[in-house]
Amino acid sequence: MKTIPILSSLLAAAVAASIGTTQAATLETERYSIEVNALVDGLANPWGMAFLPDSSLLITEKGGALKHVKLDGTTRTLTGVPEVVAVGQGGLLDVAIDPDFAENQLVYLSYSEADPAGGDGNSTAVARGELGDNGLENVEVIFRGAPKYNSRQHFGSRLVFSPEGHLYITLGDRGSRMQDAQTLDNHHGKVVRIWPDGGVPEDNPFVDTDGALPEIWSYGHRNVQGAALHPDSGELWTVEHGPKGGDEINIPEAGSNYGWPVVTYGVNYDNSIITRETHKDGTEQPFYYWVPSIATSNMMFYTGDAFPQWQGDLFVGALRGQQVARLDMEDGRIMHEEALLTDRVGRIRDIEQGPDGYIYVITDDRNGSLVQIKPAE
Amino acid sequence: MKTIPILSSLLAAAVAASIGTTQAATLETERYSIEVNALVDGLANPWGMAFLPDSSLLITEKGGALKHVKLDGTTRTLTGVPEVVAVGQGGLLDVAIDPDFAENQLVYLSYSEADPAGGDGNSTAVARGELGDNGLENVEVIFRGAPKYNSRQHFGSRLVFSPEGHLYITLGDRGSRMQDAQTLDNHHGKVVRIWPDGGVPEDNPFVDTDGALPEIWSYGHRNVQGAALHPDSGELWTVEHGPKGGDEINIPEAGSNYGWPVVTYGVNYDNSIITRETHKDGTEQPFYYWVPSIATSNMMFYTGDAFPQWQGDLFVGALRGQQVARLDMEDGRIMHEEALLTDRVGRIRDIEQGPDGYIYVITDDRNGSLVQIKPAE
Repeated sequence: MKTIPILSSLLAAAVAASIGTTQAATLETERYSIEVNALVDGLANPWGMAFLPDSSLLITEKGGALKHVKLDGTTRTLTGVPEVVAVGQGGLLDVAIDPDFAENQLVYLSYSEADPAGGDGNSTAVARGELGDNGLENVEVIFRGAPKYNSRQHFGSRLVFSPEGHLYITLGDRGSRMQDAQTLDNHHGKVVRIWPDGGVPEDNPFVDTDGALPEIWSYGHRNVQGAALHPDSGELWTVEHGPKGGDEINIPEAGSNYGWPVVTYGVNYDNSIITRETHKDGTEQPFYYWVPSIATSNMMFYTGDAFPQWQGDLFVGALRGQQVARLDMEDGRIMHEEALLTDRVGRIRDIEQGPDGYIYVITDDRNGSLVQIKPAE
Repeated sequence: MKTIPILSSLLAAAVAASIGTTQAATLETERYSIEVNALVDGLANPWGMAFLPDSSLLITEKGGALKHVKLDGTTRTLTGVPEVVAVGQGGLLDVAIDPDFAENQLVYLSYSEADPAGGDGNSTAVARGELGDNGLENVEVIFRGAPKYNSRQHFGSRLVFSPEGHLYITLGDRGSRMQDAQTLDNHHGKVVRIWPDGGVPEDNPFVDTDGALPEIWSYGHRNVQGAALHPDSGELWTVEHGPKGGDEINIPEAGSNYGWPVVTYGVNYDNSIITRETHKDGTEQPFYYWVPSIATSNMMFYTGDAFPQWQGDLFVGALRGQQVARLDMEDGRIMHEEALLTDRVGRIRDIEQGPDGYIYVITDDRNGSLVQIKPAE
């Protein structure tokens, strides 16, 4: 086990590679003293992670590798991963296990997929396979984003199962195709809902709409890189990476339009105006938003026993913001935001609660880490 | 008319006296470019302000003077103000005009009052008088906080009329008497509700409770220095100045306990622990809170036409935080917080919307200012 050195905020970005020294990191937060340990380093731009029933993890690396990682630091590379288009923001993205994993051993992967017909386009796809001794077996593609489009940007994605067993897949607008987020004839800028075998639920909101793709659950999104089920309501919550300003938390409802790019709280990265408007009839307001952006990645509701005063709170990882935002939730509202780990561990790509009630994050770096957060003794 | 120089944040605190130079201040905010003008300076620690129907203002100075101020900068001192105990945080505090001011010319003042019986204690009191040509006439005391107590701290207070014509008075816990906030036999750490003539509404929550003071509306507060009516619901909203950490927005309901000092998100200024607990049965959670404190003063809901995208938002002034926090409200929730004026005009003591839809603040300084905020042209 390795631990993270305490770094000054000015130095942290430059010395990310020094994660893994043996200096202990105990940090003070508003409610807890926390111990921050890098359990594993040497991960190449890890993107998604999922705990298995035995408390080991599956971790994706953006370049296309799926790793099986134990909390004692043991790491091995699994076989059977579909070929990915590892360009720009694309590659091997999220990983999730089936709600009935103990019975069926099914693992789901989202990734950027080349056009099977040989064109130069790509899109987010989702495949599933059975986890065997060495990797995935009997792999099948259950979702292909349409259309294939030649872009290196905005693939989403997160995979979340609903309480009824649907699979939500969160997607991106593919950058230069952002206007597609407002039309229903494509998957750009959408959240989709399918069955785990790829079938379309008959109560999806647009199954009877002419010209609409039936997988669509909600639309008007930019790049939804985070998603979680609310532990009490069972609702899907998402967090999308905005332009410069305008990272949004949404609670996507069936058939609703979240406004991108017609309304936004952000501007383009070159400071040019996307729109001055923040409200428009027929579009939903975010539940919460950040200006300036912290560059959100994934989100997690905390339900464990290790940090009782954090129960029910929403944790959102940030890339450029190099932090975890803790949103203190009470009775459905956000009462307060606290920045955790700021500039201490680098760019946060994924965040999950472990079976032990500790919090785990992975860092987006060529020498990325799996980092454990537990109460300091 | 004088304007505020653009100051670097590092210099602002040191050069508050330079407010009043002729350099224009145009500041960028998320939604608007704003022009910031110091209309009046030379106010001695102004504390409260209220617009009159003719768009002039009444402004209190903590030392005990009531000023009549026109937006062209004309200022005169009014007569008839009760004697105040101008020690520590005490003095002449808030000012409000009667909802029927056009008919009755009644003006209400809150202030720290010495013990009329000659003891060494003091407490927050409220008096009202008719505004004549030179000042207040026929002044009568309509509320006296009990007990009188010898302290320089935590007097509250703001004066807000309910839609039904009740007068809410927000109070403080008097510092070393903070435990009093949890018992109903005193006014420390309470919000009270009376009729403008000092009578007690018969539906106040504790009128039938043995040993309880019948004026009490809610309890368990620390130092409530800000209050406003929600423009749609008519509910009272308050903001209380916390310890180190734990400034709170509350929506005080009849008879409810807001927890101070049994539960809090703050610690003492010497970092010693007040309590580790944030939740307790029988106490209400804040609607929103700040850690670290920004040191809140007054609050205002914006309803004007000058800043359409700010309509419905809640603005909270800050003393040590030297800012106005804009809380972007949507459907009853806070979606986002933006800091305005940070380190540009100093400690904000009061904030009000003018009849012109512009926003006005006063600054807590020996050379305090009345500052106007309007859209830049």
